[in-house]
Amino acid sequence: MLAEIITIGDEILIGQIIDTNSAYISKELNKIGVKVYQITSIQDDRSHILQAFEEAKKHADLVIVTGGLGPTKDDITKQTFCDFFDDTLVEDQNVVENVKQLFKKYQLNKPLPANFQQAMVPSKAIILTNLHGTAPGMWMERDEKVFVSLPGVPYEMKSLLQEEVLPRIVKRFNRPHIYHKTLLTYGLGESTIAERIADWENALPKNIKLAYLPSLGRVRLRLSSMGADENALKKSIDTRMEVLNEMLSDIAVGYEDETSIVGRIAHILNQKKQTLSLAESCTGGAIVEKITAEAGASSFFLGSIVPYKTELKTQILGVPSSLIEEFSVVSIQVAESMALNCCKLFNTDYAISTTGIAGPTKGDGKDEVGTVCIAIASPKGVISEKFNFGNDRFRVIEKTINKAFEMFLKEISKN
Amino acid sequence: MLAEIITIGDEILIGQIIDTNSAYISKELNKIGVKVYQITSIQDDRSHILQAFEEAKKHADLVIVTGGLGPTKDDITKQTFCDFFDDTLVEDQNVVENVKQLFKKYQLNKPLPANFQQAMVPSKAIILTNLHGTAPGMWMERDEKVFVSLPGVPYEMKSLLQEEVLPRIVKRFNRPHIYHKTLLTYGLGESTIAERIADWENALPKNIKLAYLPSLGRVRLRLSSMGADENALKKSIDTRMEVLNEMLSDIAVGYEDETSIVGRIAHILNQKKQTLSLAESCTGGAIVEKITAEAGASSFFLGSIVPYKTELKTQILGVPSSLIEEFSVVSIQVAESMALNCCKLFNTDYAISTTGIAGPTKGDGKDEVGTVCIAIASPKGVISEKFNFGNDRFRVIEKTINKAFEMFLKEISKN
Repeated sequence: MLAEIITIGDEILIGQIIDTNSAYISKELNKIGVKVYQITSIQDDRSHILQAFEEAKKHADLVIVTGGLGPTKDDITKQTFCDFFDDTLVEDQNVVENVKQLFKKYQLNKPLPANFQQAMVPSKAIILTNLHGTAPGMWMERDEKVFVSLPGVPYEMKSLLQEEVLPRIVKRFNRPHIYHKTLLTYGLGESTIAERIADWENALPKNIKLAYLPSLGRVRLRLSSMGADENALKKSIDTRMEVLNEMLSDIAVGYEDETSIVGRIAHILNQKKQTLSLAESCTGGAIVEKITAEAGASSFFLGSIVPYKTELKTQILGVPSSLIEEFSVVSIQVAESMALNCCKLFNTDYAISTTGIAGPTKGDGKDEVGTVCIAIASPKGVISEKFNFGNDRFRVIEKTINKAFEMFLKEISKN
Repeated sequence: MLAEIITIGDEILIGQIIDTNSAYISKELNKIGVKVYQITSIQDDRSHILQAFEEAKKHADLVIVTGGLGPTKDDITKQTFCDFFDDTLVEDQNVVENVKQLFKKYQLNKPLPANFQQAMVPSKAIILTNLHGTAPGMWMERDEKVFVSLPGVPYEMKSLLQEEVLPRIVKRFNRPHIYHKTLLTYGLGESTIAERIADWENALPKNIKLAYLPSLGRVRLRLSSMGADENALKKSIDTRMEVLNEMLSDIAVGYEDETSIVGRIAHILNQKKQTLSLAESCTGGAIVEKITAEAGASSFFLGSIVPYKTELKTQILGVPSSLIEEFSVVSIQVAESMALNCCKLFNTDYAISTTGIAGPTKGDGKDEVGTVCIAIASPKGVISEKFNFGNDRFRVIEKTINKAFEMFLKEISKN
């Protein structure tokens, strides 16, 4: 069984927004055994939409369409759906009620005529109530093919997909199981890894696919397979992954789908009942943002400081100004002092500190763009390392984050 | 002239990564007058790639393909390109040299045979040297159609696009000008805006397209047009945008392409030679991350603190514990005290503070999930507001960020 995702909206094709909906939908479909054949982003244009629908019908049993359902003139998905299904728009009383309820709930002014336009829906469609917005979802069938239309606003789309669409897909289609498992590694390139695991890779059965996913400072290795017997599938991949994890034990930091690196850190610190704080200079809050983005961080993460201005490293964190003068603000000495003082300030067991020049300019210091020092303070003392991460601001920050997490995870994994 | 973007990689179709390359390429193509007809994400599968190439040829003059160029077995784009162009792979000495240089530059071990595989390229292709990675880009033509193949790693793709591909497109194709301008508004829904600007919208000429882009707490309004005369195009849209900006002056905060909201804040604070610090609790560093992500933040932004644990609000920020006990940690009183004390701690003119319950659980306080207080301390005193942003963690954080920026921009715009 194959699906296609079609996202409608000029904003995607002019690069004004990044399409995050497709990744979310793909992942959720995979979980229930639906393979996505293709993702297509098209314009708010009637003939283009119709053409994409015709194409999708050729490959896919299920077509999920997002976008173009707003109350304004640029949104034409609903009318085009009608044309494709030889249907007409009729008023749906449930949608009328839903619009009224939403306006009441959010204490908005009276709904405008445009808001009630949302209640005009194709007569043949099954209407999927949108509890978070005025545009309903729609489920339509023709020639054994299912088309689903969802709003493009991410949280409305997600809620409709979870509450209405996925349960209907499970009922309507026979699906195999799809299973992926991804090993996260840090520190080696993909071709070096490929050479090290060549024998293991060559011995993989045909129905298991290996993918290498390289990004800054890390490579993810994914095994994928599809089949009728869920347990056999899982066992077959899990066994091979354990062997791979063992072979790459010096660079592997865990499986991705089970836990993110923040999740792994949380797990270890919660088990040890230990706590963490951060003093981020060059990463400017990018590490704390990643930690607190996951629910439950408050169990081990107490707080952080971004002493962006050099003097604040002395005034608030208590880094001796003599240290900064002697070794420069980007030095392992300053990074170590930041981490140790951070532990004291926040009263935590561990602290991670970063100091560096992300660029594009050198700032007031004498250090080259790309120079970064990272330190980890722990109950046993402090470790640190100095790096050069090149001259692209975004890459320097990204590499610093990855390296800091890698160093910290290694540190807390020791015994 | 139309382009199509094809991204190759199972990781996109299973939702493991979000395709950010397409948005970047689309935006850059638009800048030089190339309209993107469609973006298609397909599998690492020979027949699927060939089929997508055939389809793209029908609509587009230029096809930009990313991904599938790595040195490992799962990458098959290059061979498939050969098949499509009836070509064979030959060794390219420049690529051999580039691989050697890269390994030397990054002080890696000797290149492996897999790395030199990158030098095997289609004989008819123009090879585009990749200074940041071993996979070269390729430019191929057939039947007046241009196909470009780029690596999927974002920074390698970006550099090749800028240095090699865009200049060649400019030389090779006649292109019109494309011009977009986007007004950022906060605080009203899209249908209410549509009603307010209906007369203005109806009077737009046919060649100017208006789009509404709603997201949490804000609506972006984009005008787009295409034409031969760049100045006439710009003037026609700029004039209409000025009228719109005037009509929506109570909710408009500026044009998006000129400056982000952080850019506008930076501009105003730099002009006034004033400074900002942050005390983020429920946003957990999401605001500081956004501020420091832009280069040059150090001119006005001095530092921030995330007192995630309640006690730290007292111990480090100096919020009286009696205030927390009397009014709860999520109260305008505590938010105001956080902001005022933050100004003192970092010695800044302004401070933004956030305190709230992002969820999913209530935490140790008595406040409901979604309750958020935001305060702005300024040389004139302190303002604050209490909100309920619903029960979805991600939305609560996102809405808090947008609202905090909106409140702060209003405050510093008061002169």
